[in-house]
Amino acid sequence: MKITLAHGSGGLQTTELINNVFANRFSNPVLDRMEDSAVVEGAPRIAMTTDSFVVNPLIFKGGDIGRLAICGTVNDLLMRGAVPKYITCGFILEEGLESGILEQAVQSMADTASEAGVIIVAGDTKVINGNGGMYINTSGVGFVSEGIDCASANCGIGDAVIVSGNMGDHHAAILSDRMKIENDIQSDCAPLTDMVKSMLDEHIEIHAMRDITRGGLATVLNELAVSSGCMIEISEDLIPVDKRVKSFSKILGLDPLYMGNEGKLAAIVKKEHADKALDIIKSSMYGQNAAIIGNVSAGEGVVVNTHLGGRRGVGVLVGEGLPRIC
Amino acid sequence: MKITLAHGSGGLQTTELINNVFANRFSNPVLDRMEDSAVVEGAPRIAMTTDSFVVNPLIFKGGDIGRLAICGTVNDLLMRGAVPKYITCGFILEEGLESGILEQAVQSMADTASEAGVIIVAGDTKVINGNGGMYINTSGVGFVSEGIDCASANCGIGDAVIVSGNMGDHHAAILSDRMKIENDIQSDCAPLTDMVKSMLDEHIEIHAMRDITRGGLATVLNELAVSSGCMIEISEDLIPVDKRVKSFSKILGLDPLYMGNEGKLAAIVKKEHADKALDIIKSSMYGQNAAIIGNVSAGEGVVVNTHLGGRRGVGVLVGEGLPRIC
Repeated sequence: MKITLAHGSGGLQTTELINNVFANRFSNPVLDRMEDSAVVEGAPRIAMTTDSFVVNPLIFKGGDIGRLAICGTVNDLLMRGAVPKYITCGFILEEGLESGILEQAVQSMADTASEAGVIIVAGDTKVINGNGGMYINTSGVGFVSEGIDCASANCGIGDAVIVSGNMGDHHAAILSDRMKIENDIQSDCAPLTDMVKSMLDEHIEIHAMRDITRGGLATVLNELAVSSGCMIEISEDLIPVDKRVKSFSKILGLDPLYMGNEGKLAAIVKKEHADKALDIIKSSMYGQNAAIIGNVSAGEGVVVNTHLGGRRGVGVLVGEGLPRIC
Repeated sequence: MKITLAHGSGGLQTTELINNVFANRFSNPVLDRMEDSAVVEGAPRIAMTTDSFVVNPLIFKGGDIGRLAICGTVNDLLMRGAVPKYITCGFILEEGLESGILEQAVQSMADTASEAGVIIVAGDTKVINGNGGMYINTSGVGFVSEGIDCASANCGIGDAVIVSGNMGDHHAAILSDRMKIENDIQSDCAPLTDMVKSMLDEHIEIHAMRDITRGGLATVLNELAVSSGCMIEISEDLIPVDKRVKSFSKILGLDPLYMGNEGKLAAIVKKEHADKALDIIKSSMYGQNAAIIGNVSAGEGVVVNTHLGGRRGVGVLVGEGLPRIC
């Protein structure tokens, strides 16, 4: 079956689409009520975020737009030290979309939500003219415990900089697919609930956390340095990059520092807690290649100590990056 | 300036777009922190909802996609008896979009959010290939007081059915624009915070509420009747329709019962509270044409007592309706 404009008009065909594609896969006591909004248990402090996903292709090695859409929002909540709880999904479907692709994405969302410990509490579907594409917005709410204050401005001099794994996998996987390059590079698309919750449970003093997506590690660290009014120094040799991604990047003249991931974070952690934090991340799902790559110091900007013993400043991503990477 | 793919890639041009278009208009202490997610005050019970807006044209008589995007989500929260608090916005921009149109929509969102009493706490922007279009997702969180239980399944026999104003204005305005028919029909696009909050403050026993959007009044009432296992009976002569919309619909063979609005609600209210509820709605912003149009009775489906003294059953909208009306 192909999606038509009638599937988005709010009548019988919209109801059929909801029943056949969404309702059974997303079923839970809150969503099943099918109300204008979901009423759920709250908390004294909540985190909220939103992200739209326009990745092209819709299905790629290591994931698909559905998994990506859950991971992106779950990870954004986690980065503030929140425990993700509720997700809403807004689908914009292009006319001509194969319902099989939609079903795969929806199933992925259901599976990933379950893995990440969130429930999907509300949804919406619209149909636009087009060529069979699909866009998904997810928004999320998480609960933030008292005393947690993870924010970009909180990096302190002496703090350790940890990344949770290899840089650039998602970017390289998407680009390989678009360029029809055969390799076995997989997207790292994953929810980071396990590693972050474990750090919170162990009272690791995390001053700031960011997931490393569009713009890559260099952009994220620059934003942290600016917000905190400090310098971040990292060592090229310590930055984990899969060797297949390294050679792929070299051939194309890409710098893994600017390549997006979808299941990696940078954590700025109190120096004394860095080793323990690293152990926790390394023993968590998706964290086995984590590394301490540098530290926060006085000054400004981001500086990389290169393999050859030099020092270079790295700025934020300028220009296009890879369009529609997420 | 026209939007390009680089504006969505997470680098410098994304930052410039955010600073020049969004940051000043949406400025508030939460959003200004520009974190991966916003940490805000919560409540013991929260309502959550999401809606994507794909309306075509982007600017129409009586509103634009920005105003619509705030109203739709605010109204969905209100329909559960929640007081809307926080909104997130996800923008999907098509390459070639004129930044002036984007700026107008963003300004509208800021103005409407302020009118509706919500703050915009998080945002996201993506750019896709296309022809200068724009899609906006808004998701929202509201607080639900103890004891409030507004739900589709709660309609009770004897309850009064109130609509808050004229049917079909938004539909007629959008269709007039697309067909290039000159008239002065305006969209009714509006946030219903005032009327709903006033009813809640006055302890009106509202059993169910729905905003009357895609699919129109007939579809909404059918959904309520099915959820509550009862019949809803309304009288054609009592349904408020602006006379310009009435003649417009007649010419095109449209039925205002199936035409969408963007600032109207149907409230199912305890019989003894109906007159007071009507007074409150009529004296609120956007409620001056409200009317009690029928009641809930034993049985099933939706029945209309016609002008000529007959009775006809009305089902949900079948087929296309008006594509991309919201």
